[in-house]
Amino acid sequence: MDWFKEAWTENIHFAVKIKSVLHSEKTSIQQIDLYDSFELGRFLALDGLMITNEKDEFIYHEMITHPALSVNPYIKHVLIIGGGDGGTLRELVKYPKIETIEVVELDYRVVELSKTYLPSLSSGFIDPRVSMFYQDGASFVKDTERKYDLIIVDSTDPIGPEAGLFTQSFYHDCFRALTESGILINQHESPYFEKESKEMKEAHDRISKVFPFSKVYQAFIPTYPSGHWLFGFASKKFDPVIELKSSYIERLGFETKYYNKEIHVASFALPTYVKKRLMSK
Amino acid sequence: MDWFKEAWTENIHFAVKIKSVLHSEKTSIQQIDLYDSFELGRFLALDGLMITNEKDEFIYHEMITHPALSVNPYIKHVLIIGGGDGGTLRELVKYPKIETIEVVELDYRVVELSKTYLPSLSSGFIDPRVSMFYQDGASFVKDTERKYDLIIVDSTDPIGPEAGLFTQSFYHDCFRALTESGILINQHESPYFEKESKEMKEAHDRISKVFPFSKVYQAFIPTYPSGHWLFGFASKKFDPVIELKSSYIERLGFETKYYNKEIHVASFALPTYVKKRLMSK
Repeated sequence: MDWFKEAWTENIHFAVKIKSVLHSEKTSIQQIDLYDSFELGRFLALDGLMITNEKDEFIYHEMITHPALSVNPYIKHVLIIGGGDGGTLRELVKYPKIETIEVVELDYRVVELSKTYLPSLSSGFIDPRVSMFYQDGASFVKDTERKYDLIIVDSTDPIGPEAGLFTQSFYHDCFRALTESGILINQHESPYFEKESKEMKEAHDRISKVFPFSKVYQAFIPTYPSGHWLFGFASKKFDPVIELKSSYIERLGFETKYYNKEIHVASFALPTYVKKRLMSK
Repeated sequence: MDWFKEAWTENIHFAVKIKSVLHSEKTSIQQIDLYDSFELGRFLALDGLMITNEKDEFIYHEMITHPALSVNPYIKHVLIIGGGDGGTLRELVKYPKIETIEVVELDYRVVELSKTYLPSLSSGFIDPRVSMFYQDGASFVKDTERKYDLIIVDSTDPIGPEAGLFTQSFYHDCFRALTESGILINQHESPYFEKESKEMKEAHDRISKVFPFSKVYQAFIPTYPSGHWLFGFASKKFDPVIELKSSYIERLGFETKYYNKEIHVASFALPTYVKKRLMSK
């Protein structure tokens, strides 16, 4: 294979020149492929869709973690749903105040292959605060007796093995599993192409029915369809902009490549057409 | 032709399914192609690069115009360099206080073809305040005796017929042709892929040597390489964020689809890696 091609829509394609195929396998859950490429370094594809690559994964993983921690620097117990590549975990283990991180990943093989082929993402799996659970995330949250300060839904799309992570009942279960100051972050699709825009709207409507604070924020992620990607910030008591602890970001103690204090606030400033779609009936 | 393909880099391709070829011609300056597509509507390509399309042109054209007008609502005399498709002009003629708009476009045929095939972009050409000049923009600015409150450089890339719009001497000439409160806006390439990132850095360095205020701002433009596109805001006396006239935006008197008060401020909040590249030696 010379080129990895992804249909952003039926009528828009994105293609990446491949240096080599590192690994391919079909698990009971999905097709997993790892490639090396000329422009993006190594990357992981699940069921034919690029999930993460070495060139711009820092944007996604910084933006799915640091905004929540900058609103509540006292987060101790975190649950990650999905995130088998380890990038989200790598960012979280930088926070010394976090005491436990549970990772619930459906497909054991994603984690194992990330450890082998994506060492720059998977470095956090050996942290002693981390517990791994290989099972369905929606069932896990439904059944858990624990309370978390932060739940991060680092999922694939609403169509596929992780569709259960976009339902109303899942968001209810997350609400129940969060502490009084709990925050739910989820990857929230994109506003530009119709398929993702519809998914964005549906997720927002469902989350807004459950959480008193429900906002959407954005980042420039060039290799995701349209490059305009969204995250959901839902909370029982924190407005993500008003409650930003700016001084805390300046004392983080580690460097970021995308995230900063101004980006935090700016990421919640949505284009008018995105706001209108989110507010539409 | 079934698909229009654009090499974002040697190793990253972007492809759009074509409904029909509307027009193709080679002028003395460049290859001009107009297509109709399934996902993006009609679009214009110059020398094989997509310049503007009906689906997301509103983002580029709102963002190259409204920030400057929201910092100085008293702008009367405007010069557009390039912009032959008419999108920038269409936004400017919405401001009743603007008295004259001069458009300097190298290629007469771009304007004529836009009038024929892109009526939603080219509606501003008939405005009585508009004067057209079909010549090289760099020479025009060098020779002009007039003073402008705003110069917008709505150009193609630094390689090609409009390379002269990215030189130090061009920015000097713009400075001279601007009033004491003058603003220079230019399309400023992108920070993500190396070619555009280098061009971004070079343009910023050159503009910063000439103008006391030189900032870079960004927008989500999904069909430009990486989807993360930049504009330069240079001025003799206005900081674009501090001097924002927020109340003015609320009284614009017309609707925008991308631009709003929060987007104005947010667009100047750059990711850390972009700031570092701009500040690097």
